Amino acid sequence: MTDYDTSRSGDVAKEETGNLIAASKVEGTNVYNTQGESLGSIYDVMIGKRSGQVAYAVMSFGGFLGMGNSYHPVPWQMLEYDERQGGYVVDLDRDRLEDAPYFDEGTTPDWSSPEYGRGIDEYYGVTRSTM
Amino acid sequence: MTDYDTSRSGDVAKEETGNLIAASKVEGTNVYNTQGESLGSIYDVMIGKRSGQVAYAVMSFGGFLGMGNSYHPVPWQMLEYDERQGGYVVDLDRDRLEDAPYFDEGTTPDWSSPEYGRGIDEYYGVTRSTM
Repeated sequence: MTDYDTSRSGDVAKEETGNLIAASKVEGTNVYNTQGESLGSIYDVMIGKRSGQVAYAVMSFGGFLGMGNSYHPVPWQMLEYDERQGGYVVDLDRDRLEDAPYFDEGTTPDWSSPEYGRGIDEYYGVTRSTM
Repeated sequence: MTDYDTSRSGDVAKEETGNLIAASKVEGTNVYNTQGESLGSIYDVMIGKRSGQVAYAVMSFGGFLGMGNSYHPVPWQMLEYDERQGGYVVDLDRDRLEDAPYFDEGTTPDWSSPEYGRGIDEYYGVTRSTM
């Protein structure tokens, strides 16, 4: 199990400048695994209303996992943006994704409950200092 | 001129938990001034590709300023979420907004240029430690 450091906003500081993307364009961005295979795409992102920090990327893995349209929220810090591929890379294998928390098309998880996010973080072994 | 502290993610930490909103829902959220008057709505948000930190809210003030559809990027930290109104509040008066950097419908500013964001930050007197 890997611990992902959530308090890295300071680290990326300056080189981030100019590397902005519109939320409306993040939606639909491809997601790859570390082998460069396309896993799916980003369906939506969940943002802290006050902090403005993206907490989860809601990924659509439908085709890949053969489960129809289902959505997997993945902690944002697990995603690395790859300029070359023009998409995000996650270090996750198929089994890990298949067992991960997800919700079906037409349903909405209870994002207002801290427990919901906590369950996702625990599954992926993410420690979160801020939302 | 007010300086806005951008390094506040640590302050809001725990109480943010559960206060998540989908990017797709932020779009269209109303924006009010401190007098509670509706100024317009959020058209899009600009996110750091790697940090996942929202840097700017792109606000649509079209009707209010009588300028048709024009979009004003405002540093995210100038927005406060007001649970009661179910929208964001900015402490900006009409003159300040009218003179602020904006772009017209159908055009896209050069977000890849750090200078573009810097111009916005300077206009609003925002010091930005991280993107």
